[in-house]
Amino acid sequence: MRIQYQQERNFIFNYLRAIDVPEDHATIISDMVTHSDFTGVYSHGLSRFSMYMGQFLQGGLNKHPDIRITSDSGSTVAYDCDNGSGLVAVNTVYDEVLKRAKESGIAIGTGCRSSNIGCASYYGWRAARDNMICIFMSNTSPLTAPYGGADKMIGTNPIVMSCPAGEKYPLVLDMSTTNVAIGKVIAYAREGKEIPLGWGNDINGVPTTDPTKVYTMVPLATYKGYGLAVFVDIFSAVLAQAFYGTMLKQFTFEVPENTGFAIMLIDPSRFMPLDQFKASVDDYANMIKNSRKATGFDEIFLPGEIEFKKFKENTENGIEISENLVKELSGLAIKAGVLKEGEDISKLF
Amino acid sequence: MRIQYQQERNFIFNYLRAIDVPEDHATIISDMVTHSDFTGVYSHGLSRFSMYMGQFLQGGLNKHPDIRITSDSGSTVAYDCDNGSGLVAVNTVYDEVLKRAKESGIAIGTGCRSSNIGCASYYGWRAARDNMICIFMSNTSPLTAPYGGADKMIGTNPIVMSCPAGEKYPLVLDMSTTNVAIGKVIAYAREGKEIPLGWGNDINGVPTTDPTKVYTMVPLATYKGYGLAVFVDIFSAVLAQAFYGTMLKQFTFEVPENTGFAIMLIDPSRFMPLDQFKASVDDYANMIKNSRKATGFDEIFLPGEIEFKKFKENTENGIEISENLVKELSGLAIKAGVLKEGEDISKLF
Repeated sequence: MRIQYQQERNFIFNYLRAIDVPEDHATIISDMVTHSDFTGVYSHGLSRFSMYMGQFLQGGLNKHPDIRITSDSGSTVAYDCDNGSGLVAVNTVYDEVLKRAKESGIAIGTGCRSSNIGCASYYGWRAARDNMICIFMSNTSPLTAPYGGADKMIGTNPIVMSCPAGEKYPLVLDMSTTNVAIGKVIAYAREGKEIPLGWGNDINGVPTTDPTKVYTMVPLATYKGYGLAVFVDIFSAVLAQAFYGTMLKQFTFEVPENTGFAIMLIDPSRFMPLDQFKASVDDYANMIKNSRKATGFDEIFLPGEIEFKKFKENTENGIEISENLVKELSGLAIKAGVLKEGEDISKLF
Repeated sequence: MRIQYQQERNFIFNYLRAIDVPEDHATIISDMVTHSDFTGVYSHGLSRFSMYMGQFLQGGLNKHPDIRITSDSGSTVAYDCDNGSGLVAVNTVYDEVLKRAKESGIAIGTGCRSSNIGCASYYGWRAARDNMICIFMSNTSPLTAPYGGADKMIGTNPIVMSCPAGEKYPLVLDMSTTNVAIGKVIAYAREGKEIPLGWGNDINGVPTTDPTKVYTMVPLATYKGYGLAVFVDIFSAVLAQAFYGTMLKQFTFEVPENTGFAIMLIDPSRFMPLDQFKASVDDYANMIKNSRKATGFDEIFLPGEIEFKKFKENTENGIEISENLVKELSGLAIKAGVLKEGEDISKLF
């Protein structure tokens, strides 16, 4: 089934409104989930939205969170996100950090009692549009072991960094601190294929090629990725006063996740005229882009470039969603009373 | 030859004073270089100092830099470091960023026309002692290619993150964004050993096991490390207005490096009482430390823990420096007129 940008947005918005999610929250979630699918990050598009639907229905996500400031000193602000959608939480905190960074040149905001933050590159795009340099981090439910460890103690803990550019697309890095996403291991298991060493470890912390034996995901380049993931925890859990380590439980639909996040925004126009900064970013990007290619490579991509181009292509052509996903979404829509048995899901587009 | 902490400090300080480096700069450099050796980071200890000596003598480092503010908006400050020692430059900018972070909760400072920044974990230690959370980045002369590229376009671009702790040692991550340091490849070449795939690429950007064929170092986990390194460049070269990409030249003793750096400090006491923050860091560190070990591992280390313990051990026992290094340092001391032919270098201790 092929759908267009506005159809996906409408479906998500209409579904959320029907289950009594406030209009401004439904707008944020539908924007972000659609952004994810249309930038090619399908893991946080509709397939992830079906999980949010389950969480809204079964209590894991609060539909009416009271997102409130718990400490505030001007350039620093901390929020309690009241177990609502992480997408709404981060965007709400982002708005406030943006105001403060415009006032003082740099600001940081944190959130606790949050949940999955969706396609994190979206925050990088937002910051670039707002002419800010951005560092964003979030912890997640535990999937990786510390270097030398065997237990699930640390999440895939993504880091986003972004900056605006001039004539070129903004630079947006969005990376987990594990070597690969868990979804890749699951896909290999489904196809009965071996995984390369270095993706996952077994229950004893030993590297394995059997995807069905993977118990923990391996941090990016082992100890360096582990170190980065620890600092994602320090910012987004310790500083934000969210759960960390063994306080975090494996994901369920019923129980709030209580993860956290931190956003830093820096105004480059405090350092030089904004146009000059953007021209330098373009100059840097062009140098990298036009440098000599390695054997076997036709093109060098800057961080976020592939997603930027995918977004243009997908908004022109629409995206394909699988029959399985259509069935899953239809089932959840029927369960929520948004769709009647036998009705076609395109009614919600 | 075994030397003690104070002996190494004295040697460096006395040498620098003898060649007319100002007293406060000599203090900073001798503190940092000694810190590096005594934390076990020998690559930025005396062996690196011999390079600084060469740079001071041959013009690559300005002995009397006029380190001055070029833009200032309170929580953001930019410096021109006038081609002096990067160690002096970063510590000078750090002092000012610390003042401003104490005032506003978060601050950022940058430096351009800088040079090698030494053992970067030192800045993380400083920040932890000052009860600040720290993010520090610096670009370096180009040694790695972008993902898919074959030319030296990006440095090893280190990132430091640190935070204070309570009863435990502070957490200090200090990592380059390449898989391994170039020094490791050189050591394998010297011993005629093959290197593992993934350390370095040849002149065509193809992974090689021959250390003598290595032309570029491989970024951490390929494209993720490349993305991180790009943002180290954005912060420490584009934002700081230092050199980047092809503007950076290979290291020589004669020509200033014109690298740059950025320091961000965040005051955790704006988010909760400082003691509470430190207790949470300890709690987190203990959870990780005490979690189940992987087969073949006896202990899990937190970022910076090994260096912290090494420092204690080395300040008790002293460190061993090789005959080759003693000869090299003696030669440079004689060349600088600090030592006479036939005199023993220990005269400078």
